[in-house]
Amino acid sequence: MQAKTPSESLTILTDLVLPSETNPLNNLFGGELLARMDRAASIAARRHSRRIVVTASVNHVAFNRSIALGSVVTIEAKVSRSFNTSMEIFIDVWIEDRESGVRAKANEAIYSFVAVDEQGRPVSVPPVTPETDLEKERFDAALRRKQLSLVLAGKMKPSEATELKALFL
Amino acid sequence: MQAKTPSESLTILTDLVLPSETNPLNNLFGGELLARMDRAASIAARRHSRRIVVTASVNHVAFNRSIALGSVVTIEAKVSRSFNTSMEIFIDVWIEDRESGVRAKANEAIYSFVAVDEQGRPVSVPPVTPETDLEKERFDAALRRKQLSLVLAGKMKPSEATELKALFL
Amino acid sequence: MQAKTPSESLTILTDLVLPSETNPLNNLFGGELLARMDRAASIAARRHSRRIVVTASVNHVAFNRSIALGSVVTIEAKVSRSFNTSMEIFIDVWIEDRESGVRAKANEAIYSFVAVDEQGRPVSVPPVTPETDLEKERFDAALRRKQLSLVLAGKMKPSEATELKALFL
Amino acid sequence: MQAKTPSESLTILTDLVLPSETNPLNNLFGGELLARMDRAASIAARRHSRRIVVTASVNHVAFNRSIALGSVVTIEAKVSRSFNTSMEIFIDVWIEDRESGVRAKANEAIYSFVAVDEQGRPVSVPPVTPETDLEKERFDAALRRKQLSLVLAGKMKPSEATELKALFL
Amino acid sequence: MQAKTPSESLTILTDLVLPSETNPLNNLFGGELLARMDRAASIAARRHSRRIVVTASVNHVAFNRSIALGSVVTIEAKVSRSFNTSMEIFIDVWIEDRESGVRAKANEAIYSFVAVDEQGRPVSVPPVTPETDLEKERFDAALRRKQLSLVLAGKMKPSEATELKALFL
Amino acid sequence: MQAKTPSESLTILTDLVLPSETNPLNNLFGGELLARMDRAASIAARRHSRRIVVTASVNHVAFNRSIALGSVVTIEAKVSRSFNTSMEIFIDVWIEDRESGVRAKANEAIYSFVAVDEQGRPVSVPPVTPETDLEKERFDAALRRKQLSLVLAGKMKPSEATELKALFL
Repeated sequence: MQAKTPSESLTILTDLVLPSETNPLNNLFGGELLARMDRAASIAARRHSRRIVVTASVNHVAFNRSIALGSVVTIEAKVSRSFNTSMEIFIDVWIEDRESGVRAKANEAIYSFVAVDEQGRPVSVPPVTPETDLEKERFDAALRRKQLSLVLAGKMKPSEATELKALFL
Repeated sequence: MQAKTPSESLTILTDLVLPSETNPLNNLFGGELLARMDRAASIAARRHSRRIVVTASVNHVAFNRSIALGSVVTIEAKVSRSFNTSMEIFIDVWIEDRESGVRAKANEAIYSFVAVDEQGRPVSVPPVTPETDLEKERFDAALRRKQLSLVLAGKMKPSEATELKALFL
Repeated sequence: MQAKTPSESLTILTDLVLPSETNPLNNLFGGELLARMDRAASIAARRHSRRIVVTASVNHVAFNRSIALGSVVTIEAKVSRSFNTSMEIFIDVWIEDRESGVRAKANEAIYSFVAVDEQGRPVSVPPVTPETDLEKERFDAALRRKQLSLVLAGKMKPSEATELKALFL
Repeated sequence: MQAKTPSESLTILTDLVLPSETNPLNNLFGGELLARMDRAASIAARRHSRRIVVTASVNHVAFNRSIALGSVVTIEAKVSRSFNTSMEIFIDVWIEDRESGVRAKANEAIYSFVAVDEQGRPVSVPPVTPETDLEKERFDAALRRKQLSLVLAGKMKPSEATELKALFL
Repeated sequence: MQAKTPSESLTILTDLVLPSETNPLNNLFGGELLARMDRAASIAARRHSRRIVVTASVNHVAFNRSIALGSVVTIEAKVSRSFNTSMEIFIDVWIEDRESGVRAKANEAIYSFVAVDEQGRPVSVPPVTPETDLEKERFDAALRRKQLSLVLAGKMKPSEATELKALFL
Repeated sequence: MQAKTPSESLTILTDLVLPSETNPLNNLFGGELLARMDRAASIAARRHSRRIVVTASVNHVAFNRSIALGSVVTIEAKVSRSFNTSMEIFIDVWIEDRESGVRAKANEAIYSFVAVDEQGRPVSVPPVTPETDLEKERFDAALRRKQLSLVLAGKMKPSEATELKALFL
């Protein structure tokens, strides 16, 4: 299967923060951002695989910065690495200042999706060829995250998680 | 005030068609698409003016093609021309085929926004410098649309609408 | 096919402006109003044609007046003219003052719908017989708007748009 | 305070049943209909009193007939009687057949609202003068419902509920 | 059919009051609370009957206390009595103070549901065996409410409503 | 500060899967489930701390099982451990079969929240005293997850993550 670059799956979702999506402090609900990121990431996974895709896991999301009502939020999602039938999607979230136009990073998140056929059975997806330095770094780290995920789920012995183990030794 | 290019205000909103947005034929409601385009266009107007912006009018929207539940819809909005305190926003809507990855044009729309200060009074916005052939064509046509709009609202005599009149003579 | 009057398709949608529909200035989003008008207009078109109807175009909408959170908004939609398989719907939007009970015009909009059969093929609709002076005026203007729409879409030569041409000569 | 007729508070809300409002059998959720009727009834109460109004109770709602996805639903709400600071609102719900245009009754409901000032204190509302036979019948029955409500809440002794008692003797 | 206790159908729905559910006074809309209670009550009815259930009526709901934006609302629904194919559901609504953790009663409501088969025909449901004093009291009162409902609907003669009649004599 | 048990913060959110929350395969959207879990977890964190709480991170969520339209979903959230100003919340998601009444585990998720004062500054929260075996196991594992989170964020050297390191040696 022909490899693809992360930029081929790049998905941009720029939208406003609406009143129905904010908490009593008038900031975007964590849960709403998780839902928006899920939609953007699923489109990136679909563009990479050209298949039906389903969310497999949310690896880690840190909410570093609150996002106020009326903000313009840009979500950028790209496939960072694929593993046979699954894809890791890296998501960057930006907000921009109306007056200066300056963009600031608000969040990062990592989701995993599985490609399936019409009967819901997993199917293979193309490999990923990272291009930029950041894409290469995320590609490498994806393997450690994969191992960590398997170890935590009890599906891999810690001793076999070679990439991860190297981190602690 | 420093002119800006249309690409400086380019706003991309790629998202799924959700079940809550579809009519009984399982296609995206016209009204929902109008609301999504309004949000994308308002962000483009805000990026061009760096001001609070309010929708002034929807000039014309043709619904040429139905958009099915589950489709990936990409809305691209750019400022096509500005008139002192108002901006015309040109919106292109695309859908893409999951299996082939091919994009097809689904809709075009033109909205107008006015920039206002905190008290809601109109304020000046930067001029637009079109770059591509399509941007130049849309920039020129914007004047005819502006005159047409004034004529239809009874604020300009047809005889003074020189650009528009030329079309019929 | 038996002609119908505009009042036979009159559709009234009176509802509150809810918090989830307002922008950061606490006014009804332009996009939300477009969606509400689309639903009211589609019911008027359906009452006139007794067919499935789909939005064909939004001809022109001017947002003259902001509509505050908590307002009571009344949308009145009536078929103004029909053209074989399509219908023009004229929409008047009113808001009312709670204390005095006075109604004020907030917006006007014109939408077009096409009647279709179960396979989505256009089908004929009844002609319209206007009754009041306002209905007659809108009936006449509908032809000019139709020609204008065809000219702008490149489907009619300006020289053939007799009604419209008369406006500029 | 000047009496008003029920028709002065008549509020009509005609709208479609949208996919997001239906249960797995593709019928309008009871809860959604309750919410729509609450909005229509609150507007009728506001039109009668020209005051801020809050829902006091839902007296009785029978769901006799399921309402399918895509239906056109018309809610008609009118003040049936007032009691010092409270108002009883009678709500009729109709659905119409697309092909024949015939309207059928789908539901009836009775809500009570209280008029309040800016500090939330109850304030007096105008009396109601019923005009039609149906309005007179509902006006009379409203007193029995009021007594019943007080008896059930333990705020009136059954022996003092003269209107209601007569029903059983 | 094996009797069940009310606690076997207990359904708890604890959730926040979101901005999209509040009125201009920033309190939960009556209509939204009605919809939430309908969902919780339908789950209790389904747990008791293990059948598809549809809302038959809302017997009475009093809105004694407004519920502010950001509140934590707990809805507890239990089957209080069954009548062949229908079930009465008693619903208690609580709000809790963030700082003290104290719970206060905000509302009570009574809904009726009917159990149906796949074709929508009513089917029998298990009887209810109340356990606590409150459950026994509600079980007894359910019969009076049932008679009252039949009398008001003209389906039972007042003279035959023995339980209810006793209240007034 | 007085320690609390996990059961003191137990939050139960039982609700239906509505059509507006499902993907084209008629299953609950991953993003919607993330949003629901966020709301339940925030209530548990608030009950433990009696403070305003904000989502700090989503540690890991695995979507093992799709949840169909119309399902009854029960989310149970409890504080599993606290760290000075932050709380780890463990969330279990259950679905139940209508006919048999049997509950099955659908998902597990772990979220972190921070307690803040009115100015948004972190404040201390009570410690947690686990009671059951499962609560103790989750309490212990929380420390490893905390270390892992710090290591991945570059805020702790792997060599200092003693709990975590033990896993690999």
